Amino acid sequence: MMRVLGIDPGLRQTGWGVIACVGNRVSHVANGVCKTPAADDLGTRLVSLFDQLEAVMAAHAPEAVAVEQTFVNKDGAGTLKLGQARGIAMLVAARSGLRVGEYAPNAVKKSVVGVGHADKRQIDHMVRLQLPGVVIAGPDAADALAIALCHAFHAGSRAAQARASA
Amino acid sequence: MMRVLGIDPGLRQTGWGVIACVGNRVSHVANGVCKTPAADDLGTRLVSLFDQLEAVMAAHAPEAVAVEQTFVNKDGAGTLKLGQARGIAMLVAARSGLRVGEYAPNAVKKSVVGVGHADKRQIDHMVRLQLPGVVIAGPDAADALAIALCHAFHAGSRAAQARASA
Repeated sequence: MMRVLGIDPGLRQTGWGVIACVGNRVSHVANGVCKTPAADDLGTRLVSLFDQLEAVMAAHAPEAVAVEQTFVNKDGAGTLKLGQARGIAMLVAARSGLRVGEYAPNAVKKSVVGVGHADKRQIDHMVRLQLPGVVIAGPDAADALAIALCHAFHAGSRAAQARASA
Repeated sequence: MMRVLGIDPGLRQTGWGVIACVGNRVSHVANGVCKTPAADDLGTRLVSLFDQLEAVMAAHAPEAVAVEQTFVNKDGAGTLKLGQARGIAMLVAARSGLRVGEYAPNAVKKSVVGVGHADKRQIDHMVRLQLPGVVIAGPDAADALAIALCHAFHAGSRAAQARASA
């Protein structure tokens, strides 16, 4: 059994989702959204995000972490904000000694929906199909679960390849 | 006496500089550059930057921290990298309970050189003039000392205003 934590980073809202994988079978463990109030100064928000993600790591002790590899936002200021939140997510995961998988949005969509240009509703639908009974905390949590599923799929493929070549 | 830590964040090299202020007088305390090897994966580099900056905070116990407010890099990927490093710098400072001053590059140049469009050599020259005998670890450390000087100048102005209106 391997627990995978997926993270969809953002300064305002960071989605997270934990799944458990046994062979090819996946099941839902938990998901949620870390929010930081826009009224707080940046340092306070980053400390809050750090503390919330450390609490998620402590509560669910994942063996693997995957983060969406977003390159750009609409504008430079938005990209910088996203980068700051993403840096905290990568830091929290790496401080636990875990290697962090990074997946481009299209790779996530392709492995969860089957095509690289799926919209939010399709992702939400396929996440629910693959994790029956899941109650999703919001769109960012759905994306985070999709990232975790993507990582589980890739890890499963690597394991199968390793068995085939052994 | 107030010690101010200035930080010029970057993933490859983060410059830092500590100055001491007594009234209008400033003096050099220490400066350096935190480097992270490009060959390491992103999580490892962010953890290394976090640890190095925590060590700087522990060694020099500043009462104030100032970080350059860079908005954009040449491209989205560069801006995201910068944001990730900047997020770590803001986090380390804010975790110590310090409020972090943010200054746009032009504000830093204006308060140190007198004009907003100064080049690297002018900044280096003025930092050396204001901190006699300083040995600077590199261009990023010079920028970090300039950011600390900018913060000291603004803090001094605010204190003078407060005295004038008291």
